[in-house]
Amino acid sequence: MVLPEINSIAEICAQHKIEDVVLSPGSRCAPITIAFNRHPQFSPITLSDERAAAFTALGMSLETDKPSVLVCTSGSAAYNYAPAVAEAFFAQVPLLVITADRPPEWVDQMDGQTIRQSGIFGKHVKKSFDLPVDHQHPDAKWQFNRQVNEAILEANSFPKGPVHLNIPIREPFYPEKGEAIKFDASCRVIKKRSVLNDFSPQVWEELKQEFSLYSKPLIVLGQQKLRADLIESLGQFSSKHQIPVIADGISNFHDLEDVISLPDNILIGNQDKKPLQPDLLITFGASVISKPLKQFLRSYPPNAQWHLEETGMTADTFQCLTEILPVSPATFLQHMKEASTSFSSPYFQLWQQEQKRQREKLQAFVEVSPFTEIKIAHQILNHLPQDSLLHLSNSMTVRNVNFVGIPVQKNIEIACNRGTSGIDGSNSTAIGAAMKTERLTTLITGDMAFFYDRNGLWNNYLPANLRIIVINNHAGGIFGLIQGPREQEELATYFETHQQLKAKNTAEDFNLDYFSCSDFKALNTLLPDFFKASERPKLLEIFVDKEENKSSFDQFKAHLKG
Amino acid sequence: MVLPEINSIAEICAQHKIEDVVLSPGSRCAPITIAFNRHPQFSPITLSDERAAAFTALGMSLETDKPSVLVCTSGSAAYNYAPAVAEAFFAQVPLLVITADRPPEWVDQMDGQTIRQSGIFGKHVKKSFDLPVDHQHPDAKWQFNRQVNEAILEANSFPKGPVHLNIPIREPFYPEKGEAIKFDASCRVIKKRSVLNDFSPQVWEELKQEFSLYSKPLIVLGQQKLRADLIESLGQFSSKHQIPVIADGISNFHDLEDVISLPDNILIGNQDKKPLQPDLLITFGASVISKPLKQFLRSYPPNAQWHLEETGMTADTFQCLTEILPVSPATFLQHMKEASTSFSSPYFQLWQQEQKRQREKLQAFVEVSPFTEIKIAHQILNHLPQDSLLHLSNSMTVRNVNFVGIPVQKNIEIACNRGTSGIDGSNSTAIGAAMKTERLTTLITGDMAFFYDRNGLWNNYLPANLRIIVINNHAGGIFGLIQGPREQEELATYFETHQQLKAKNTAEDFNLDYFSCSDFKALNTLLPDFFKASERPKLLEIFVDKEENKSSFDQFKAHLKG
Repeated sequence: MVLPEINSIAEICAQHKIEDVVLSPGSRCAPITIAFNRHPQFSPITLSDERAAAFTALGMSLETDKPSVLVCTSGSAAYNYAPAVAEAFFAQVPLLVITADRPPEWVDQMDGQTIRQSGIFGKHVKKSFDLPVDHQHPDAKWQFNRQVNEAILEANSFPKGPVHLNIPIREPFYPEKGEAIKFDASCRVIKKRSVLNDFSPQVWEELKQEFSLYSKPLIVLGQQKLRADLIESLGQFSSKHQIPVIADGISNFHDLEDVISLPDNILIGNQDKKPLQPDLLITFGASVISKPLKQFLRSYPPNAQWHLEETGMTADTFQCLTEILPVSPATFLQHMKEASTSFSSPYFQLWQQEQKRQREKLQAFVEVSPFTEIKIAHQILNHLPQDSLLHLSNSMTVRNVNFVGIPVQKNIEIACNRGTSGIDGSNSTAIGAAMKTERLTTLITGDMAFFYDRNGLWNNYLPANLRIIVINNHAGGIFGLIQGPREQEELATYFETHQQLKAKNTAEDFNLDYFSCSDFKALNTLLPDFFKASERPKLLEIFVDKEENKSSFDQFKAHLKG
Repeated sequence: MVLPEINSIAEICAQHKIEDVVLSPGSRCAPITIAFNRHPQFSPITLSDERAAAFTALGMSLETDKPSVLVCTSGSAAYNYAPAVAEAFFAQVPLLVITADRPPEWVDQMDGQTIRQSGIFGKHVKKSFDLPVDHQHPDAKWQFNRQVNEAILEANSFPKGPVHLNIPIREPFYPEKGEAIKFDASCRVIKKRSVLNDFSPQVWEELKQEFSLYSKPLIVLGQQKLRADLIESLGQFSSKHQIPVIADGISNFHDLEDVISLPDNILIGNQDKKPLQPDLLITFGASVISKPLKQFLRSYPPNAQWHLEETGMTADTFQCLTEILPVSPATFLQHMKEASTSFSSPYFQLWQQEQKRQREKLQAFVEVSPFTEIKIAHQILNHLPQDSLLHLSNSMTVRNVNFVGIPVQKNIEIACNRGTSGIDGSNSTAIGAAMKTERLTTLITGDMAFFYDRNGLWNNYLPANLRIIVINNHAGGIFGLIQGPREQEELATYFETHQQLKAKNTAEDFNLDYFSCSDFKALNTLLPDFFKASERPKLLEIFVDKEENKSSFDQFKAHLKG
């Protein structure tokens, strides 16, 4: 007979309104697998490579904003979750990571699939629980119920993140043949109300007063989810006060009116940066892609930086942080919009001119560019359908998009694994997200990131709204674009790491419709068809010449500086 | 200018006679990459998927018995090493795991590729060092040199295992264009002499006296490397004293005279086990595959178990351990061969009869068996060339081999990742081993393990002596063979996890010669050609019907019991 406590995990998850469960096959975890499968609220999926499974669950949670449940067997399976767990931790994405374990008495006894699982995710989970292996004593039952509840509450509490439940299980793992699994709907569920952080009227008054002392405020937005209401209120705020707003490519503020969306292009330039220096910097969101923007703010620091950060965490990205405001951006904008200010209109205009100039420069560049990655990104983005979700892999893909900017007024949402900024897991993450949205979901990726996570496609549930675009230059092309490595004899072998793979066989193996091209004419002919609704997911492989791309990228940078 | 301390890592490794370096591409680790590449003693290879890179290094170290060096960039890259690091830890394989890190001041600052790397491998490395980021102070230079030395010594000290060097590095990462990298051959190297564990004459006398009090001693051998000298001395010992020796499939004692090599088959039987019960159990080596053997010894425990374990570790696999003897098997055999004993010859004969009976039963079974996995394993093993290395993946592959036994007198060495017994990493491990041996290296694997580690083949250095045999039943077939899961509605979807992949495209992608078959005639025709020397590695895919295999496996077990 399977232990009722194990079944209660599914029931407690259901009552906490968890939706998604990603299993990986195994014996030790069988009772948990069976509990989730038999519970009427869940339709678990199963993925065999735990590394890909975990990134897929992460992609699901990115869409739902709820913890997805991961379940794996004991042993090294759990460690294959670790890259996605770290990403979830820094990206503040909720996950409930359940690892079945051997009973503690069997650790280090040379028995199979037994490692030291307790606390295995170290500092990359919000909390880790070792559940009791014996459930007879009432205190053990109480502990089991309480810790399952606590894990879910913790995953959902701000800042959200991954939480680990390590569950030692003794044999037998399987119910008797035909044995019904019972769920006790009256099992205890602990809930937690959300709070709204706010300041006293006095604090708001002080902030308004200080606010009015500055003349060149600048808002910089890091990575966050698309929020139409926030775009609207920030638009009113910035236009009322004449505050320039820099939206990094992954900030999802590209639809904001008058937004400065090309910080890379502006700040790579050789112009005098001094006039662009703010005296007050207001920031919210997580990380920014733009290295020139970081360098600019570190070299031309404001007098003050206010960082809106509800967690109260001290992340001093620009090395000029002076005030942490642990309130939501919405709350801040609501209170501060009534502040009386007389900010410098020329400062606002200066940023607008820079943005306009770079828009024109970009247009001039792409009109004459050969078939290289900046222009390819530009073309793809122009064809991207309204209301679609765009996933970007790390390395050059996300940077190229930052150079060309997201097309505006098409309600496109951008996602990219910038918690750890790894190249691992981007296929899986996009697939997980695509499974949980009706929107067309496009992943743009490079060949290295694509093949790294090829097992993301080893998934019997690939959704038809998935589109994958692989920019294949047969290498980690980013290294050829950076001054340091391109001057070394190691460039081709150890940095770019030439690789010959093409994606065609992979597309065939996993039943994706395959398209390919290597010039603009073909690309522009293909794209409308590629983005059309279909019964199967599609993969487009774009072949790029690495050397041609390198010289074009140099020209692009020279063009920006010129 | 690159820091001289970073270059000293390569020099210290060279002076410690380390041979193999497996790099993965990245910027943060660039100075380490360059140091290893420029050092005349190293010819590093580079593999892009860190998970596969780490298992490949593990495979190399399995062959060389020396630490292979792994080098990766900062961020989630390090976590992709973790499954192989855990395997190395429990399998006692030396690895020097070098992770480049951001300087400590940048941790948690929302900057790219920065996670909490310090101590990231938790309890699965022997030791973990955070090297200093500033090297100006003489004490910091001393710490850097000492810790690199200590890491290597620790990896090489008994029990060997993985050691982690976390190295924070500030920009610039690259030497100036044309700048020569200098190595200081006079840098300090700390060496350590090995000890031989021995007992005093008095202890040996006590052991001999106690030894002579028993009448039914039994030797059971767990996983270890092939050692011809030990096979010889154990053969003399067991034949002199008439001690039955059970060699688990992965123990590499299949060439021992009179060895009991089919413990699974013997102990699955319904016969009275009481007469097989030993009064003294002597064990050495690591884990054993055979679950019936473990269950037998736990149910019919000896009066005493002596475990020869130089580390002195207490691993009580059979739950009857009474004495840990921290000396090598060679030392033990050397001293104890002169003990005067009068062990029961009938007990020795009983085990011999059981082995002989099972040999005959096996032969009878394979003669009539349809095209199923037990017989396929039998056929492959019969064709395996002399002096070859055989890698087995986990799950059913290694168990099937245990059922049919390794062919004798062909000097075949067996390897299998039984540290954690995961299905991950078996392609990479076999490839790493094949790169470091002249022997023909064959991996037998199932479809799940093969596709799980498909990126193991994403390797520009695949050696021609590599042979991969994929037994493809389109599922994790093991679950259909176990009573518990096969009685559940979840069997096909959640345990076996049906998957449709065939290996042909993968073989094509990675330039392996591809063979396939689905009957004995074809298999027996193919195998001689498949094992022939060639310019390219080869892959043989054998298609098996899961259902037919299931019923045949039932018949096999019934046949063993009958």
